[in-house]
Amino acid sequence: MRYAEDLYAGLSYSLGSWTVTREQIIEFGRSWDPQPFHVDAEQARSSYFGGLVASGVHTFAVFQRLAVLGAYQDWATIAGRGVREMRFRKPVRPGTTLSGSFAVTEVQPRGQGRGLAVIRGTLHDQHHDLVFEVIMETLVARRPA
Amino acid sequence: MRYAEDLYAGLSYSLGSWTVTREQIIEFGRSWDPQPFHVDAEQARSSYFGGLVASGVHTFAVFQRLAVLGAYQDWATIAGRGVREMRFRKPVRPGTTLSGSFAVTEVQPRGQGRGLAVIRGTLHDQHHDLVFEVIMETLVARRPA
Repeated sequence: MRYAEDLYAGLSYSLGSWTVTREQIIEFGRSWDPQPFHVDAEQARSSYFGGLVASGVHTFAVFQRLAVLGAYQDWATIAGRGVREMRFRKPVRPGTTLSGSFAVTEVQPRGQGRGLAVIRGTLHDQHHDLVFEVIMETLVARRPA
Repeated sequence: MRYAEDLYAGLSYSLGSWTVTREQIIEFGRSWDPQPFHVDAEQARSSYFGGLVASGVHTFAVFQRLAVLGAYQDWATIAGRGVREMRFRKPVRPGTTLSGSFAVTEVQPRGQGRGLAVIRGTLHDQHHDLVFEVIMETLVARRPA
């Protein structure tokens, strides 16, 4: 288990990968982001993207899943605090395989036995293009005395 | 249909509301954010929150759903560009009813018949406490000539 004092700028992880299917794009879109280019293949064809693309929220969800399984689950995570910035760099089309990476950029000591970790996360597609970028803040517990 | 030239700083919407259930928290968590305090009631009790809370990604998804149904679906939306900032202000526990609001803070003309709208969105709970805050950028088409 990694506590706040075990984290440092430069600590980095290669996360796993996840393939976004057509069915998954439509199902996620119907539930949480019902815009035509996420849920309706016909209407999506005449959109800017020329076809179905995943919701940005869905892409963020894929990143979070990879980050939990590949890094956070070994941390004494208390809570996510927020996002400093998030960028959708390239559309995520059906069949895209996203591979994650994750690096700590800053650790700030906080009171009450906690530290604040700032992390930069990315997703790249199977062509090695940058698809998604996020800078997040996470509260992590210090080692119990 | 609202095009980029129909948007202006101060344009605001009261969005609908959405109740986050225990089952929804666990299901979303299992799929996208499998940390103990999102998926396991037993382990959540001994966490910082003292019980199950919704993933921040889930809270963002609720906001997006309300924003699409209450505003974006009447806009000539091209694509979400990203998030400038997102803050989780208060934990979302089972049974919380979230009500959304949404205001345009800035509109920048862009080339190729587009405009960039900056919006500030919030979710408040049934106690009128601020739970979630986001500043996002969305590309919107100009009216066809």
